[in-house]
Amino acid sequence: MINKLVSKIKATNAPIVVGLDPTLKFVPGHIQKKAFAEYGETLKGAAEAIWQYNKEIVDHIYDLIPAVKPQIAMYEQFGIPGLMAFQKTVDYCKEKDLVVIADIKRGDIGSTSEAYAVGHLGKVTVGSKVCYGFDEDFATVNPYLGSDGVRPFIKVCKEENKGLFILVKTSNPSSGEFQDRLISDADNRHLYEVVGEQVAKWGEEHMGDSYSYIGAVVGATYPEEGKLLRAIMPKSYILVPGYGAQGGKGKDLVHFFNEDGLGAIINSSRGIIAAYQQEKYASYGEEGFAEASRAAVEDMKADIEEALSSR
Amino acid sequence: MINKLVSKIKATNAPIVVGLDPTLKFVPGHIQKKAFAEYGETLKGAAEAIWQYNKEIVDHIYDLIPAVKPQIAMYEQFGIPGLMAFQKTVDYCKEKDLVVIADIKRGDIGSTSEAYAVGHLGKVTVGSKVCYGFDEDFATVNPYLGSDGVRPFIKVCKEENKGLFILVKTSNPSSGEFQDRLISDADNRHLYEVVGEQVAKWGEEHMGDSYSYIGAVVGATYPEEGKLLRAIMPKSYILVPGYGAQGGKGKDLVHFFNEDGLGAIINSSRGIIAAYQQEKYASYGEEGFAEASRAAVEDMKADIEEALSSR
Repeated sequence: MINKLVSKIKATNAPIVVGLDPTLKFVPGHIQKKAFAEYGETLKGAAEAIWQYNKEIVDHIYDLIPAVKPQIAMYEQFGIPGLMAFQKTVDYCKEKDLVVIADIKRGDIGSTSEAYAVGHLGKVTVGSKVCYGFDEDFATVNPYLGSDGVRPFIKVCKEENKGLFILVKTSNPSSGEFQDRLISDADNRHLYEVVGEQVAKWGEEHMGDSYSYIGAVVGATYPEEGKLLRAIMPKSYILVPGYGAQGGKGKDLVHFFNEDGLGAIINSSRGIIAAYQQEKYASYGEEGFAEASRAAVEDMKADIEEALSSR
Repeated sequence: MINKLVSKIKATNAPIVVGLDPTLKFVPGHIQKKAFAEYGETLKGAAEAIWQYNKEIVDHIYDLIPAVKPQIAMYEQFGIPGLMAFQKTVDYCKEKDLVVIADIKRGDIGSTSEAYAVGHLGKVTVGSKVCYGFDEDFATVNPYLGSDGVRPFIKVCKEENKGLFILVKTSNPSSGEFQDRLISDADNRHLYEVVGEQVAKWGEEHMGDSYSYIGAVVGATYPEEGKLLRAIMPKSYILVPGYGAQGGKGKDLVHFFNEDGLGAIINSSRGIIAAYQQEKYASYGEEGFAEASRAAVEDMKADIEEALSSR
């Protein structure tokens, strides 16, 4: 799956992943109205609205990008109906041949991590049959519990040719509270460096052609840390959230890439899916929200291309 | 909700929470057979089997215990049908007046954490209506992303009188890999101490009558660390996994409790729900699996009572 991701990035010339993180505030009124008319102002109605919204966006951008990253929390907030909309979104994106990176940030101890891993990336045995749960291509994983929390995910990835992005340095303002602590028994390196080294080791256990199936999450908002982590984990793809709405810009991103122009995939969520709410794309109007998303993808692609070519 | 938890612990004289972490390996053959006859060897069939299994166990133990802790991963492995069984289990336990601690170990950045928080502990607005998602009483939270990942959970807890248990020192063998690292800018204390101090601070923001709504997870397998963390977080309830099957024993647990005999709630999962598979309870047979669970709860209660009275 990492090979597919790399080849799709090359083919689209877009090291970009679009975060499908819908909230009702983003969903145009006409879509909400229709969904509520059918299912009421209920969790089902909300789930239908976000699914229709997602579908129209995907239809307008799938040919420009290699991958999408649905954030499961935005669906989980609407309970079971929301998670059904998540599943529909995953399935639809796979139909469109997009690589699906499920932003689930799961992580637990041994057998429990295994349950998450089989539910999202693998298969379960039921009686004499084998069944697939959510069946995404990649998942994000929280490493706080250590190797025996992460290894079950790696095991399933090896069986299924799937991959992971492990949280190393997150994009939020208080990510430093624990992740930036200096570790005295690691020569006063930061915790995120220690985690990054571990990701590099885990990555060696499951290599694709040029990059590992085991990648990392490092926020666009921390370019200096990105530079350091790029060197620590040369074979790991870095998934970079925080571009656009969170403040990261194209020029902040160059250090996340390797010399080969690969090794990083930049996420934008709101900046793409709610582009029509920005002044810049306001002329598309609510009805043209998906065209606005397409324009925002094209602008993001150009911004990153320019930053990379002028480094 | 922390007040309800404390008063139920006093009323049952059982600082015990039963982990409802079903896998098909635990579910007796006759239950699986019936479920598969109705729904096939499918995710739905598996979900029906674990729901019926849970229900019979809960019916046999609800009067002995204050709380249950369903581990969502064990349901999520069966996709949407599994999560529907999780929801049914949560709802049923609440009907039985049990406090429901959802072991979800979620954690993300700001608005995304908020989505998890409203989905599990709060409510969402859909048009002019307010809707509840999973609606558990407590949730476990992963703190790796720092304060702005945790605060949205605390905000929702304040609005809804719900509570959290934040991962501080987990019960698994490799929990030390990151959690035990010595932090040079914190006088060489361990990362788990730094996290524990933060939990104590967060806890002050949302106090119940005698304990905070914001508790911590500290594994039974680390009694010395438990002693230290008990002192660091005097007002936080400690949820202690790792008793029984993971190796923790009653005598290891005394340091997790305060002098008032409160402040800790000990989890057992497999040791209770799959008791009939242990030699000790084999005489109950597969058909008597729920009676075996009841006997195991009574034995666990006695073990902890003895340990506490002889300290």
